[in-house]
Amino acid sequence: MTTTPATETAYEPTDRTVPTRSRDRARYDRETVHSILDQAYICHLGFVRDGAPVVLPTLFARVGEVLYVHGSTGSRPLLAAGKPDPGLAVCVTVTHVDGLVLARSAFHHSLNYRSVVAHGTAYQVTDEAERRLALDALVDHVVPGRSADSRPANAKELAATAVIRLDLEEVSAKLRTGGPNDDAEDLDLPYWTGVVPVAHAYGVPVPAADLAPGIAVPDYITAL
Amino acid sequence: MTTTPATETAYEPTDRTVPTRSRDRARYDRETVHSILDQAYICHLGFVRDGAPVVLPTLFARVGEVLYVHGSTGSRPLLAAGKPDPGLAVCVTVTHVDGLVLARSAFHHSLNYRSVVAHGTAYQVTDEAERRLALDALVDHVVPGRSADSRPANAKELAATAVIRLDLEEVSAKLRTGGPNDDAEDLDLPYWTGVVPVAHAYGVPVPAADLAPGIAVPDYITAL
Repeated sequence: MTTTPATETAYEPTDRTVPTRSRDRARYDRETVHSILDQAYICHLGFVRDGAPVVLPTLFARVGEVLYVHGSTGSRPLLAAGKPDPGLAVCVTVTHVDGLVLARSAFHHSLNYRSVVAHGTAYQVTDEAERRLALDALVDHVVPGRSADSRPANAKELAATAVIRLDLEEVSAKLRTGGPNDDAEDLDLPYWTGVVPVAHAYGVPVPAADLAPGIAVPDYITAL
Repeated sequence: MTTTPATETAYEPTDRTVPTRSRDRARYDRETVHSILDQAYICHLGFVRDGAPVVLPTLFARVGEVLYVHGSTGSRPLLAAGKPDPGLAVCVTVTHVDGLVLARSAFHHSLNYRSVVAHGTAYQVTDEAERRLALDALVDHVVPGRSADSRPANAKELAATAVIRLDLEEVSAKLRTGGPNDDAEDLDLPYWTGVVPVAHAYGVPVPAADLAPGIAVPDYITAL
């Protein structure tokens, strides 16, 4: 396998970040990877428990070259990552679907998508300043500006929350864009062919039943 | 741990399908599980490779109590599942985000979501009739009605495609609905609180550049 060396602007491909197929869809530049991560707030966190895979959806945030995930101190992956050595082997995957690709042949049906897969070992964050930074980032990653407009965690809440970090080292993006790729001999078939765009949409904010009168929807929510 | 016996209408909870926290959010009835699965078309497929977890996004379809996933015969998980014994231990997770829950306290921020986690062993499907049924289901799961309005796979395409199946036996759903759950002492804080709904939206279909004139967008696409 040919690999290109890591640069300041790209992650170094490894055996497990080079796909076995559709290699032309793989990307290793940090700009692409960061962009895909920052437009999502849910990741799928994979780990191994008793030899079997477990995949759980969870919030995440990126700060520089670190991904943070948080959860109850009692949750299984966070407990496992709390063991100082060797941490918890994880795979964190983030996916956006951008379109349904309808080809003339069933075989060439596809999706337009952007995904990031990050492999590595996750460790619990014990430094209090880093824990606070991560918790703010987790709130702001979902709604930019929100952490400054809510009550910060108190000591009891901090004690109940575990934060784990995964350094972005073994990372790749994969993406598909564009229209269907039908075979030449199928071009005259009488089926509609094209792409149905898919997007993530926000609805009108619904105030909590007990929201005091006079508190308007903040601009940073309207801006979503 | 207390477990309830399996019934015709529910999956039997097991050690790994009973969450360590927020147990009130767990559901085991088939109706809820099927509904969450059928409204999605992307799953996150987890498996173990060289002792480490791998999580890949991929299309899936449900037919009765079976999930099907397909891919190139050369892809890693499909190759691994092709070994007749013991198959491939997998975890298949499907997640919908329905809303951003903004509480007055950072700690009580949350998401409204619906997810399904299915554990088990996946096997390659070798029966040709079942393979065809699965491939049609994979197309129709994304766009109902599409498999009948496209060219079916030919022998060469079938030979290049692997299909794996996971029987739905060890399965749970988890969901959160409703507004924020702030602590009583936070109710007078001056922060906006409520839910921002999140939805999946389809855009206007974009015909392929080489679509012949006179082929209109079919009703089953408009119906999305």
